[in-house]
Amino acid sequence: MDPVYFDNAATTPVDPDVLDSMLPYFKNTFGNADAAHQVGRTCKVAVEDAREKIARLLNAEPSEIIFTSGGTESDNAAIKGVYSALSPAGKNEIITSPIEHHAVTHPAEALKRSGAKIIYLKPNSNGVITADQVRGAITDKTGLVSLMHVNNEIGSINPVKEIADVCQEAGVPFHSDTVQSVGKIPVDVKEIGMNMLSISAHKIYGPKGIGVLYVKNGTPWIPWLQGGSQERRRRGGTSNVPGIVGLAKAMELSIGNMETNTQKFVALRSKLIEGLESRFEEKFTINGPKEGGVAHIINIGFKTSNEQGLDGEMLLLNLDIEGICVSNGSACTSGATEPSHVLKEVVDDDAIASSSIRVSFGKQNTDKEVDYFLDKLEGVLDRMLKVAS
Amino acid sequence: MDPVYFDNAATTPVDPDVLDSMLPYFKNTFGNADAAHQVGRTCKVAVEDAREKIARLLNAEPSEIIFTSGGTESDNAAIKGVYSALSPAGKNEIITSPIEHHAVTHPAEALKRSGAKIIYLKPNSNGVITADQVRGAITDKTGLVSLMHVNNEIGSINPVKEIADVCQEAGVPFHSDTVQSVGKIPVDVKEIGMNMLSISAHKIYGPKGIGVLYVKNGTPWIPWLQGGSQERRRRGGTSNVPGIVGLAKAMELSIGNMETNTQKFVALRSKLIEGLESRFEEKFTINGPKEGGVAHIINIGFKTSNEQGLDGEMLLLNLDIEGICVSNGSACTSGATEPSHVLKEVVDDDAIASSSIRVSFGKQNTDKEVDYFLDKLEGVLDRMLKVAS
Repeated sequence: MDPVYFDNAATTPVDPDVLDSMLPYFKNTFGNADAAHQVGRTCKVAVEDAREKIARLLNAEPSEIIFTSGGTESDNAAIKGVYSALSPAGKNEIITSPIEHHAVTHPAEALKRSGAKIIYLKPNSNGVITADQVRGAITDKTGLVSLMHVNNEIGSINPVKEIADVCQEAGVPFHSDTVQSVGKIPVDVKEIGMNMLSISAHKIYGPKGIGVLYVKNGTPWIPWLQGGSQERRRRGGTSNVPGIVGLAKAMELSIGNMETNTQKFVALRSKLIEGLESRFEEKFTINGPKEGGVAHIINIGFKTSNEQGLDGEMLLLNLDIEGICVSNGSACTSGATEPSHVLKEVVDDDAIASSSIRVSFGKQNTDKEVDYFLDKLEGVLDRMLKVAS
Repeated sequence: MDPVYFDNAATTPVDPDVLDSMLPYFKNTFGNADAAHQVGRTCKVAVEDAREKIARLLNAEPSEIIFTSGGTESDNAAIKGVYSALSPAGKNEIITSPIEHHAVTHPAEALKRSGAKIIYLKPNSNGVITADQVRGAITDKTGLVSLMHVNNEIGSINPVKEIADVCQEAGVPFHSDTVQSVGKIPVDVKEIGMNMLSISAHKIYGPKGIGVLYVKNGTPWIPWLQGGSQERRRRGGTSNVPGIVGLAKAMELSIGNMETNTQKFVALRSKLIEGLESRFEEKFTINGPKEGGVAHIINIGFKTSNEQGLDGEMLLLNLDIEGICVSNGSACTSGATEPSHVLKEVVDDDAIASSSIRVSFGKQNTDKEVDYFLDKLEGVLDRMLKVAS
């Protein structure tokens, strides 16, 4: 039996239509998009078509779309690129939050070596930062606000439009990591009004190794990955043509089918929560938002009678043995033995933070898989809670 | 008819065996290599197998192989990462050459904003920098020497072993862009003794968007692309599993078949040069090394009776119309109307520098294609020289 894969926030299978769109560019149409001859030009056309399609889907201009190697590069380029542009004028403060992805917090921390001051806004227990918090933190030294749209571990949604309004009013660039929102909830850059956003293809049934950095025209920003004159001199390196074509297709499909997919996630989520309630009653809790988050991410904490909680790694391992793939945080920090930096921040009870798993649905998941998951989870928890009590 | 593709230094078609090795990782084996469950672990094994294979092929340790998005990222990470590590101790000088790829010179130039001093060693007319030049340029402020192994436009080979010896003696890290040498000539990191090298998959029949940065254990270097704990915290971002698997396969094939391929390139080169001699006599010249360069890159300059030379763009365009794909420099700088930065440096005669094309062979090229190229080139040149005279 194929495993039940409930770890779609970590990565997703490539959609067969996406792979089909990519294949020609590995084969006969293999050119360097910046070569002047016909083999190159065909690839250039494919890259620029993808750029236009992506711009349209985000309501951006094609000139504002920069192809990168993924969400982490986009976050690095956004944060370090704005810092390079604005810190010489004394704007060395970066406002962010402690529950951002490490692709945001680690580059920000690294800039301390160059004199940056990082201001962390505390999220509420739902994992949300308010526009008022941002307003209160902005000073005349603020160079950048970077706050994610959807949290990858608990599914909370930040009020990015309100935050963007505050930033715009103060004349501060606003970057948002939208890796977990694009294709899941509407992202219209003109409607929201952010200056920069980061996208990753492999979270939305596209290939790994490709992403987008959106940079609104006029944003103070210096290119970060330097080399050839690709991407209008804003990101060096031979264009990853199959990746770019696949990313455009993945965005087209996930945004085009967003409503259908969301309905599916809402139904799967209801079924899961009903099952948890009927089987575990008071023994579980939802970490982060009970309502108002994205439908496909559910972070579940289990209550134990001892103070340490369950061994999160053992819980994952036991579920894995039963053919269930979930996570206890972000895959990017796996190997850690303590609760994720996100749960430490939003969950008061350490024992629950340790005894938590993230379920993240994908469009391929089924009702039957939820039933299977609940059955196996019940058996695993029974065994583990006996040992832990 | 398929075009005659003589632009393999710009990019190569993906080898069918390489694509086959990648496909499972787009489909059922799609996991995040850092996820703790079975879908992730299978991918982790594939990534670590690839790392071991690549390490073996370079005579490096697996812990010294860092996967990146390609040659440009590897060059950026090498140069900026060493600069971050050593500049605080006053070592702010970087020794390089004006004929490096822009993926080296542009990051170096960008570091001037942070106080770097860039020392450019002048290549001889063969495009070679000597170890003595490096010795003469090293000071107690030198933080890094970055000199490429094989030049991408004229095929010259730098004496990297002698340069590495000088650097080692002086205690200065040595980085070499080996994008055009790996898979073409032997690269053994222990034998050569460099600290860092950069590899790109798509130059050796692998996929675009993936590469390697080799960092010898003990080299002073700070990670540049920061995020999750992937690559032992030295390069954030979800592992590009299909890309990594494809890169390992591409290196295995190109290094395994290096002798056979080189013999083919030597024969194609001889045939090409004999043809040029018999058809154009004194009207052409080889830019860069006549001997001692790599066999598969030949940079050909044409002599005209006027001072401006030929219009290089028109020459490419005319050949393209005849179904021939060559370049007049690096694809990374296409769109430029003047001679490439490499030819400006190594070719004395501006008219010849303008009237030059780069032919770069791949393993798929044939004798017949050389004949076709010579025939068409003769017709195009006849027409263009008449206009130019």
